[in-house]
Amino acid sequence: MKKLAIGIDIGGINTAFGMVDEQGDLYAESVISTRKYPHVEDYPVYVEDLCRALRTMAHSLSFEYELVGIGIGAPNANYHRGTIETPANLWKFRDEEHSRDEARRIFPLAEDISRCFGGVKTLITNDANAATIGEMVYGNAKGMRDFIMITLGTGLGSGFVANGEMIYGHDGFAGEFGHVIVERNGRECGCGRKGCLEAYVSATGIKRTAFELMSTMSAPSKLREIPFADFDSSMISAAAAEGDPIARECFRRTGEMLGRALADAVTVTSPEAIFLFGGLAKAGELIFEPTKRYMEENMMFTYKNKVKVLPSGIQGKNAAILGASALIWQAR
Amino acid sequence: MKKLAIGIDIGGINTAFGMVDEQGDLYAESVISTRKYPHVEDYPVYVEDLCRALRTMAHSLSFEYELVGIGIGAPNANYHRGTIETPANLWKFRDEEHSRDEARRIFPLAEDISRCFGGVKTLITNDANAATIGEMVYGNAKGMRDFIMITLGTGLGSGFVANGEMIYGHDGFAGEFGHVIVERNGRECGCGRKGCLEAYVSATGIKRTAFELMSTMSAPSKLREIPFADFDSSMISAAAAEGDPIARECFRRTGEMLGRALADAVTVTSPEAIFLFGGLAKAGELIFEPTKRYMEENMMFTYKNKVKVLPSGIQGKNAAILGASALIWQAR
Repeated sequence: MKKLAIGIDIGGINTAFGMVDEQGDLYAESVISTRKYPHVEDYPVYVEDLCRALRTMAHSLSFEYELVGIGIGAPNANYHRGTIETPANLWKFRDEEHSRDEARRIFPLAEDISRCFGGVKTLITNDANAATIGEMVYGNAKGMRDFIMITLGTGLGSGFVANGEMIYGHDGFAGEFGHVIVERNGRECGCGRKGCLEAYVSATGIKRTAFELMSTMSAPSKLREIPFADFDSSMISAAAAEGDPIARECFRRTGEMLGRALADAVTVTSPEAIFLFGGLAKAGELIFEPTKRYMEENMMFTYKNKVKVLPSGIQGKNAAILGASALIWQAR
Repeated sequence: MKKLAIGIDIGGINTAFGMVDEQGDLYAESVISTRKYPHVEDYPVYVEDLCRALRTMAHSLSFEYELVGIGIGAPNANYHRGTIETPANLWKFRDEEHSRDEARRIFPLAEDISRCFGGVKTLITNDANAATIGEMVYGNAKGMRDFIMITLGTGLGSGFVANGEMIYGHDGFAGEFGHVIVERNGRECGCGRKGCLEAYVSATGIKRTAFELMSTMSAPSKLREIPFADFDSSMISAAAAEGDPIARECFRRTGEMLGRALADAVTVTSPEAIFLFGGLAKAGELIFEPTKRYMEENMMFTYKNKVKVLPSGIQGKNAAILGASALIWQAR
């Protein structure tokens, strides 16, 4: 009988899910809103509605199969405990009053979802770790025992694999490489500190770089016509492709920051390859070329010309669902 | 029958070795010179003399035992290949002429030593990794699955353990945390780059800091009476203990650099504890207090007040032999 896993990707806006086999083929998919359940007290309703939608999907298949497990990718997920812990953008308190009572915002989602399916194995990790395991199971990291995944979305996520295993860390929260400090007293970061890598290298980071460069460079640029509020990082790729000097400098700087940081990361785990995934990575050579160049320029001699920088092998809109489902195949 | 492992610690000056049981008790020890064999062509003679000395030690025991293996800690050791590769201070070329022919300086030491003992299991890794495994087998990291070891000697070595396993990396050279860049265009480092952590945090690093501070501060200090060539980092500890303002500032700065770097390291592996080992760590609170303070000050909220900074549990002059022998117990 065909074996299938459910993959669930929980974002701030939507929760997408699908049924995937061990080869990464998708047999069904669906989505519910996450945003419709914004408060702490909405969480049980969210779980109920998600379970109903999952069951509907599961019953929609016209062939017999065995459900081997459910993998979930979500922000602030703790792999060891199966929980989502004090997420910045999910199930918040209605008022400021309770905001110190954060212990109430530890959500045992793995257990709650498992219960809907008679206790089937359910694993949860953060979205970057899910993407990492997706790369290992279905993507370009197949057979690799040591690699690093960098996910370039609104922020910068990361996953580290050593000795063939995901590094979850003592507390289940390892792999926050977006929050190494790359510029002492640098740009303000969402985490409350200053100078984190993701304040420079991410969709938000490159946008901030564009606005910095519009202030420091005098070259003409199409980007100067777009107000900050309407600005999207894809506009920088489009302008760079047309040779816009500020847009090109944006990518050079972004690659420089990322390349330097990766040279440091390599000293810790000495990986075979580093994968770049997500929106910014789609800019291709615009981001890969400076990243590789500055990484090698800053690399300790021991590691020079050994570490590949590669695009993710998992593309398309279902990448996050695939990554989440891979948690199950990886754990078998 | 008692089971014993041989531990060998290869330094630039001496090679020390001993026979150790699984509890870390030492039953015999001895030493030969390393410095007596400085050139590439001396390597076979070194192996022969080392084997003879190891056999003499092995025969000196007055009880029956089983030799389960030999563990070696050495600079530039490749765990996967069992080799020492192009070490900076061992078995060099006699003249500059061959210095480009570095492929000839890959020494298959694990195999060569194993052969002396009828092919017994022989493992090799760098000295910091050996200290890390020693901590896991005999020391304060017993039972820990995720921790970081920082060895503070002439340089700064490191070992990362995740999921209960040493991270050797794809090429066998992982764990060079002394060579993350902490100051762009900073102090020259022995690795040929600038601003590496070990140029600030190590016996050599704190000495350099003392001389920098003697130039930037005007406070009186006993340290001003000692010429650079005669200066030893232990003089800074002694002066700091007496309240010398420059010596105390040396430790604050060193702890600041180390603490910041550790806050970054934590984002990668999220360890339960970080151990400090070696000369500088013996300065106790002088180094631990600022290291912890700046680590917490720079830590991402996710990891705040979770990570212990602890002294190594393996003390004394035989620490390196114990660490090397632990490779064998760890691999069983």
